[in-house]
Amino acid sequence: MREIWHQYILRVGYKETDQMAVVHHANYVTWFETGRTEWMRAFGLAYSDVESKGLLLPVLEVNVKYRSSAHYDEVIGVFTKIKAFSPVRLEFCYEVRRLAKAGSVMPAVLSQQVSEPVGELLATGSSVHMWVNAEWRPTKISIAAPEVYKLIENIVE
Amino acid sequence: MREIWHQYILRVGYKETDQMAVVHHANYVTWFETGRTEWMRAFGLAYSDVESKGLLLPVLEVNVKYRSSAHYDEVIGVFTKIKAFSPVRLEFCYEVRRLAKAGSVMPAVLSQQVSEPVGELLATGSSVHMWVNAEWRPTKISIAAPEVYKLIENIVE
Amino acid sequence: MREIWHQYILRVGYKETDQMAVVHHANYVTWFETGRTEWMRAFGLAYSDVESKGLLLPVLEVNVKYRSSAHYDEVIGVFTKIKAFSPVRLEFCYEVRRLAKAGSVMPAVLSQQVSEPVGELLATGSSVHMWVNAEWRPTKISIAAPEVYKLIENIVE
Amino acid sequence: MREIWHQYILRVGYKETDQMAVVHHANYVTWFETGRTEWMRAFGLAYSDVESKGLLLPVLEVNVKYRSSAHYDEVIGVFTKIKAFSPVRLEFCYEVRRLAKAGSVMPAVLSQQVSEPVGELLATGSSVHMWVNAEWRPTKISIAAPEVYKLIENIVE
Repeated sequence: MREIWHQYILRVGYKETDQMAVVHHANYVTWFETGRTEWMRAFGLAYSDVESKGLLLPVLEVNVKYRSSAHYDEVIGVFTKIKAFSPVRLEFCYEVRRLAKAGSVMPAVLSQQVSEPVGELLATGSSVHMWVNAEWRPTKISIAAPEVYKLIENIVE
Repeated sequence: MREIWHQYILRVGYKETDQMAVVHHANYVTWFETGRTEWMRAFGLAYSDVESKGLLLPVLEVNVKYRSSAHYDEVIGVFTKIKAFSPVRLEFCYEVRRLAKAGSVMPAVLSQQVSEPVGELLATGSSVHMWVNAEWRPTKISIAAPEVYKLIENIVE
Repeated sequence: MREIWHQYILRVGYKETDQMAVVHHANYVTWFETGRTEWMRAFGLAYSDVESKGLLLPVLEVNVKYRSSAHYDEVIGVFTKIKAFSPVRLEFCYEVRRLAKAGSVMPAVLSQQVSEPVGELLATGSSVHMWVNAEWRPTKISIAAPEVYKLIENIVE
Repeated sequence: MREIWHQYILRVGYKETDQMAVVHHANYVTWFETGRTEWMRAFGLAYSDVESKGLLLPVLEVNVKYRSSAHYDEVIGVFTKIKAFSPVRLEFCYEVRRLAKAGSVMPAVLSQQVSEPVGELLATGSSVHMWVNAEWRPTKISIAAPEVYKLIENIVE
């Protein structure tokens, strides 16, 4: 499996902080979602198009390990990599890292492939997903949307 | 129009705070939503049932004036009153008040009618809504769901 | 270790849903937080008091496994149990279950001990926490707040 | 007062949608916050620096009028303009507009001044703010941080 990470850069918003003056831990789960969405998009697959085909990719499992805290206005890199896939499942792993302190300017390129994650490690995590149809029945993506499956195969191998 | 308020009591969660150590101002808009939902329910109308009839009540306008801040774990009263209604529109007004400080026990009754709001005033506001059908076309509730319209008339007059 | 669960009951709000018409998966992490906060409170320990003593309990790790989806307005039980503890760490496990469908009335008692979780299982999970002081240095709760440590010992053993 | 708008571009995230398959209305209040933060930054003023000086800018009032709905993955422009200011207050007005449909690529420049808002109008709004010090006492920014006040004067006049 290819050792390529996708880097997506975001800035911490005020509403994401809590009274410990750090990003509330639940927001990392949403950042992972942004990470895998932008991973898909970078490879030519808008998740909105997937849903238009009547396919959904709900979350079966999510895990986060917190190492250090993100703060308001910091520039954060969400690094996403595919961990495993099959016609019925997709697994991702993630790293969240601080790229620049509060007040820094955003980089010009927000979404790109990188050979390895950079910046101070804030959290690591993973998620497991299952392909289902509009009635939430488990579905083989290789049959329901072979072009999507082929695209994932191409990304990974 | 009847001068009756509905009081719904909730407790401030950690995620609702921000790094000013107060409830982030956007959460009051969600508290208003909870207030009008529980107002409806108190009068025998679950909004989930309304949606089951293929009717939606999107928000046209929302206004909030902030007087003082809510804090983590405080017991908050959301007071809701109907302000105006017609076959096509509904308007609510709201008051958000502090009922008890952090660490206090919740009252036994969370949802009830009161003659006037009590507690320290934190915010006031209003919202305007329009009845639409599943295709988001404006709809006369008095025709699409006369029992719902009659119920609102009974509440108010 | 005592096999006692704490049950806390909440109702799904509209903002918690997403366009799959289910509760967005990140909200379960916030429900876990509510679960452990109410677990503490039920045993006489308001987390707001803990923070007043200059102690924080940040999250080191959180894991969620999703079995079935929660929907708008459903009545949800969050079941919380302590899994492990030491002077420096606390671990919880959780079950999220559907207690009643949309439109149901809330039970009179929202917070109570139960011998085992009831209702349709929606998700299971766990979280790991560390005691730190106001400067985020790891702290032995048994020394910094022996009354809090004694209380946790009493709950568990 | 100068008729210059600041345009900040964002993409709708999945968690921002609700079961009506549109962006939940409370999120516009957070988008306004992002809009005014990026307005400040564009003029050389990071709000994180303002807070470092012991100054806060809480919200006194927020108003939103909704015209049309934003949807998942759409490219949204948040247009922000100063409406009024004094040594103790700041008022902004906002327009939220759809710039591109779901699946579109993001523009290269996310933050820039524009002479007038473009795109399909989704919402308009305003907010009123007050300068306070770390103890939440009303503060004259012209005295507490004259360089900040001068900067705002320069922007506007």
